[in-house]
Amino acid sequence: MPLHPDRLFPVDQATRELARNIFATIEGAPIISPHGHTDPRWWGENAPFSDPASLFVTPDHYLTRMLTSQGVAFEDMGIGRGAETDPRAIWRTFAEHYYLFAGTPSRLWVDHALSEVFGIAERLSPRTADAAYDAVAEKLAQPEYRPRALYESFGISAIATTDGALDDLRWHRKVRDDGWSGRVLPTYRPDAVIDPDQSDFALNLDKLGEMTGCDTGTWQGYLDAHRSRRAFFKEMGATASDHGHPTPRTADLPAAEAQALFDRIRAAKAGPDDAELFRAQMLTEMARMSVSDGLVLQIHPGSFRSQSVAVRNAYGADRGFDIPVPVSFTEALRPLLNAVGLEPELKVIIYTLDETTYARELAPLAGVWPCLLLGPPWWFHDSYEGMRRYRASVTETAGFWNCAGFNDDTRALCSIPARHDVARRVDSSFLAELVTSHRVDEEEAFAIAPLLAGGLASRAFRL
Amino acid sequence: MPLHPDRLFPVDQATRELARNIFATIEGAPIISPHGHTDPRWWGENAPFSDPASLFVTPDHYLTRMLTSQGVAFEDMGIGRGAETDPRAIWRTFAEHYYLFAGTPSRLWVDHALSEVFGIAERLSPRTADAAYDAVAEKLAQPEYRPRALYESFGISAIATTDGALDDLRWHRKVRDDGWSGRVLPTYRPDAVIDPDQSDFALNLDKLGEMTGCDTGTWQGYLDAHRSRRAFFKEMGATASDHGHPTPRTADLPAAEAQALFDRIRAAKAGPDDAELFRAQMLTEMARMSVSDGLVLQIHPGSFRSQSVAVRNAYGADRGFDIPVPVSFTEALRPLLNAVGLEPELKVIIYTLDETTYARELAPLAGVWPCLLLGPPWWFHDSYEGMRRYRASVTETAGFWNCAGFNDDTRALCSIPARHDVARRVDSSFLAELVTSHRVDEEEAFAIAPLLAGGLASRAFRL
Amino acid sequence: MPLHPDRLFPVDQATRELARNIFATIEGAPIISPHGHTDPRWWGENAPFSDPASLFVTPDHYLTRMLTSQGVAFEDMGIGRGAETDPRAIWRTFAEHYYLFAGTPSRLWVDHALSEVFGIAERLSPRTADAAYDAVAEKLAQPEYRPRALYESFGISAIATTDGALDDLRWHRKVRDDGWSGRVLPTYRPDAVIDPDQSDFALNLDKLGEMTGCDTGTWQGYLDAHRSRRAFFKEMGATASDHGHPTPRTADLPAAEAQALFDRIRAAKAGPDDAELFRAQMLTEMARMSVSDGLVLQIHPGSFRSQSVAVRNAYGADRGFDIPVPVSFTEALRPLLNAVGLEPELKVIIYTLDETTYARELAPLAGVWPCLLLGPPWWFHDSYEGMRRYRASVTETAGFWNCAGFNDDTRALCSIPARHDVARRVDSSFLAELVTSHRVDEEEAFAIAPLLAGGLASRAFRL
Repeated sequence: MPLHPDRLFPVDQATRELARNIFATIEGAPIISPHGHTDPRWWGENAPFSDPASLFVTPDHYLTRMLTSQGVAFEDMGIGRGAETDPRAIWRTFAEHYYLFAGTPSRLWVDHALSEVFGIAERLSPRTADAAYDAVAEKLAQPEYRPRALYESFGISAIATTDGALDDLRWHRKVRDDGWSGRVLPTYRPDAVIDPDQSDFALNLDKLGEMTGCDTGTWQGYLDAHRSRRAFFKEMGATASDHGHPTPRTADLPAAEAQALFDRIRAAKAGPDDAELFRAQMLTEMARMSVSDGLVLQIHPGSFRSQSVAVRNAYGADRGFDIPVPVSFTEALRPLLNAVGLEPELKVIIYTLDETTYARELAPLAGVWPCLLLGPPWWFHDSYEGMRRYRASVTETAGFWNCAGFNDDTRALCSIPARHDVARRVDSSFLAELVTSHRVDEEEAFAIAPLLAGGLASRAFRL
Repeated sequence: MPLHPDRLFPVDQATRELARNIFATIEGAPIISPHGHTDPRWWGENAPFSDPASLFVTPDHYLTRMLTSQGVAFEDMGIGRGAETDPRAIWRTFAEHYYLFAGTPSRLWVDHALSEVFGIAERLSPRTADAAYDAVAEKLAQPEYRPRALYESFGISAIATTDGALDDLRWHRKVRDDGWSGRVLPTYRPDAVIDPDQSDFALNLDKLGEMTGCDTGTWQGYLDAHRSRRAFFKEMGATASDHGHPTPRTADLPAAEAQALFDRIRAAKAGPDDAELFRAQMLTEMARMSVSDGLVLQIHPGSFRSQSVAVRNAYGADRGFDIPVPVSFTEALRPLLNAVGLEPELKVIIYTLDETTYARELAPLAGVWPCLLLGPPWWFHDSYEGMRRYRASVTETAGFWNCAGFNDDTRALCSIPARHDVARRVDSSFLAELVTSHRVDEEEAFAIAPLLAGGLASRAFRL
Repeated sequence: MPLHPDRLFPVDQATRELARNIFATIEGAPIISPHGHTDPRWWGENAPFSDPASLFVTPDHYLTRMLTSQGVAFEDMGIGRGAETDPRAIWRTFAEHYYLFAGTPSRLWVDHALSEVFGIAERLSPRTADAAYDAVAEKLAQPEYRPRALYESFGISAIATTDGALDDLRWHRKVRDDGWSGRVLPTYRPDAVIDPDQSDFALNLDKLGEMTGCDTGTWQGYLDAHRSRRAFFKEMGATASDHGHPTPRTADLPAAEAQALFDRIRAAKAGPDDAELFRAQMLTEMARMSVSDGLVLQIHPGSFRSQSVAVRNAYGADRGFDIPVPVSFTEALRPLLNAVGLEPELKVIIYTLDETTYARELAPLAGVWPCLLLGPPWWFHDSYEGMRRYRASVTETAGFWNCAGFNDDTRALCSIPARHDVARRVDSSFLAELVTSHRVDEEEAFAIAPLLAGGLASRAFRL
């Protein structure tokens, strides 16, 4: 039995007992998933998943990166030209290396999914690989394991996807047109039409113009095109935008300078800092639009994408070679904050991969600016230790109410219940420790727990 | 009863028992407060405090910033033009939002002050707000709640204020002239005559010249004026200077370059880096003067002040919008250290808001340079978790004896006993954990505890 | 009795019991010491150590720096012109200040060495100083305390030294020629012929040319000379090179630019960034050679050496004034990684003094690049708290198998068993905590323990 009912709880017996009691009140709370990367097509089409390997292994960079680190070829994970096509072979490769995940969150997530979602009692290993494969494959053929059924059995009450500005949101429309009760929201992620360093940027702006009828050859037309797409996304249910910039830099240029900057970029005459400056300016423009249309602005900065050029060229993006860099927010956010930071309607959610910013900058920032909320521990820090460091670093300065609650940020559908389970256990444990060290009262801990398990996320994302 | 006698102690029973025993030996030790921001006028005039709101809420940026973060208007906290003037209304606003402080040090401090200083049994809430207000207001009218009486009932043995170089120290003189037994020391904080970026810098230098009879139009006269003011402060009891620079950068320019730099700044012909360079040079000049006059040099770097221009303009400084930035000391302190770092009489106390410097730089620096001492966890880190991180990061490389002991650094008078209480509890717990993990012996822990509770502070500040 | 059998174990009783049981299975495992600074002459000559002070105190910068920080003169520690020459007097000075080490790893190491290696029952203090001195001195005269005997009684199975590129490795040869069974391996540390900022760099390159018969006046000849020395080191048993650069920067210049850079440096016409760029380029060249010859590449970056110029001039290097600086690896390692990072034969071990890089950069890097391994907590972080932060920060993203295992990195011979003892205790405790919080199973913990105690180090260093 891989899952122990007391997993992730404190070892001290009294604290563990309290953590268990707190957790019991939130264990079954509906899952609110306001930021993530599930494929909208799953929800729209509701087709069965084809096989265990393509559901669990091949697309999950948390899993493939660990195998890469120990010399497993991408091809053996089903990635790239000439890759293995037999899902069972891929699954066996994964199972052979599953011991590598000891002590990692992926281990908790996969254990949880196999046990709780697929009813598999034994831990994955070379010995159990085939039986596990068969069990998962058998279930995937059943209607209860189609995406919408999983949404329901997972107890999800709302889930957001992440969608390019040029996306037609057809699958979101399909969800709506089908009259299915699930709530699947798009999120406006316009990186491809904001980041001049992205390939096809100019082409993307042309398409943006066509889609919106705006003249994206001009600064004002370009901004209007964003407004138009944001309105469309909002109409389709979006409550937020999201921005994956290399840095958190923002800018608030005088109108003429912003226009000249846009013109240089559009004319392919950009100087060396212009792309960065343009992204910086656009964060402030997005914030201004948020003040008008109410979309919550999310900033996910500080990942150096595709560090290995050879891997990106041969196997594409999202193969585990995205590596964090140091970031600092105090100076970077200043222009945006001075432009619109006191607007009562604005909400900006900040994420970080640089944990040094938690106590040094983000908690002080969120602990005073009314527009700012701290996103949950992100990516590599979406983990037992990562969550503990986050709460210990953030709470004393920002409290609980300046946090945006948990979100799972995942493209691995079956890990969603596991990720919320981990977060709820760690938060229950943190609250229990506050109580047994007499920093909060027991009744407060029980009152705060449901906020952390969903209430704050609802409030932050206007769900 | 908001205060539990075992608060902040470890949960493990044996360790808790030991922490309790260690704490019992230092709980009642005199409070040494060698760095802080109480108003000298309180001590000199000894007038009653007017009301609970202006004592607790309005001037305390720890409290107001949290309310600001949740959208409470400054005016409702009694700040700014047209602000609420009824202290009871301000107090009610505070009480309505008091739940926000769950898990923060402010909560521990306010709970402690209301309970231990004002004898209020119930936690502050909208329900208890009026009763608490009445109880505090009633006490404030009594002679036992005037500043000097509080000094005595708090068990303070010495308290330092922080005073501008142009201050006439009239209230310190009044304390002395009155023959009161309390020890209230000024601290020489010359930022306004050292930082060319401060408003009125040139005017301040003119005033400094008038006060001292030195020609502050020349570099040597300017330095002489500092010497003169330092001598005056020392005569009035000061044992330390303090410097709140944006960065910890120091410089040790050749004499001619330093003079030319001063001349450029005095002539309003400064280049872009000149203000920073001048501050850097002046830290080394201050250190040189410290070698002569024995004042301990404190450096508080790395806060970006008044990040919101609109808030600063409308509501002034110290409104919670001071946000830390990354700092590094190794390179920054090198000029100063190579100039005077081996002088046996020099003491330099370093504070940081960037906790990454604890283990990486400050413990290694203080663990070798005889002049350097580490200040206690500062500002946002003056907290349970902050103190634990500090001890865990610093002790293994710097030991206990290279630390400057605790100081409360507060302008909130009634939080002084609370802050020392928290520090003593956390230190007792840390020592107890060292013992139960067999890293120090029990008798050593009992010997070190009084050092952390006051001995090191006395030694560091020559009190 | 200074050593408690449960030292460094968790306080929770069930977790402590488990940690004890795990530790029992690895306590006696052979010591693998693949990186360190013991003197090869000790192993080659096998002469008795002269006295307690020169064995324990004078050369150990961990110890002398703490005394320096509290004002003890170098001379009183036997360092510098006119220094104390009576080892007993030096020992007494050390003993008088031994209380300073409470809570530090040095205290654990010295306690362990005196107790376990020299059988001294009481803790060092002014009272016990002379008796301890006599006991150590008496033992040092016995054959059981000569270096090779200590190697054997410590249970060392292999130990690497760190040797300059120009070293003739005579003592390693002597070990081999004597037919002694101990395994003493050199490590290729070519800083003096790679770092243009080192004194005598040009002279060193001339010597390198003479030693190898290569024309070190040309870029290709210079590279050939490295190849030649690496081959010699490898023949003498080396399995690794080591590089102590100021930063982790790497470069991969086009051949013509690299040659031009070398020519500028060789002609003493280097520009301001050239030394740094040359070091950066050479890391990549070393990695390329590693692909060919199989030597494992170690990078130890980020120490600002000899911060006090006066101390360096008067007392030499390694006097405790080496202070860490902030580093970042993501961008710095990119050129090297893109050049050779996917080569299956390459192994690169990264160390850091900047703990912020653990979770932010190093675990993500080692968790995907097949060539990268994380070195153990280094220098100031080779400690109880340092190791705990390391495991907590690194494991969730990199797992255990992307770590290079422990190495003691010491020049203090008698601290070797102590350092491995600390590491094994902390790792046993960490594993026990993983089990009691149900993150790994008990049998996994017992399987991982011997890897951490030696298996990973063997694998990483190809021993």
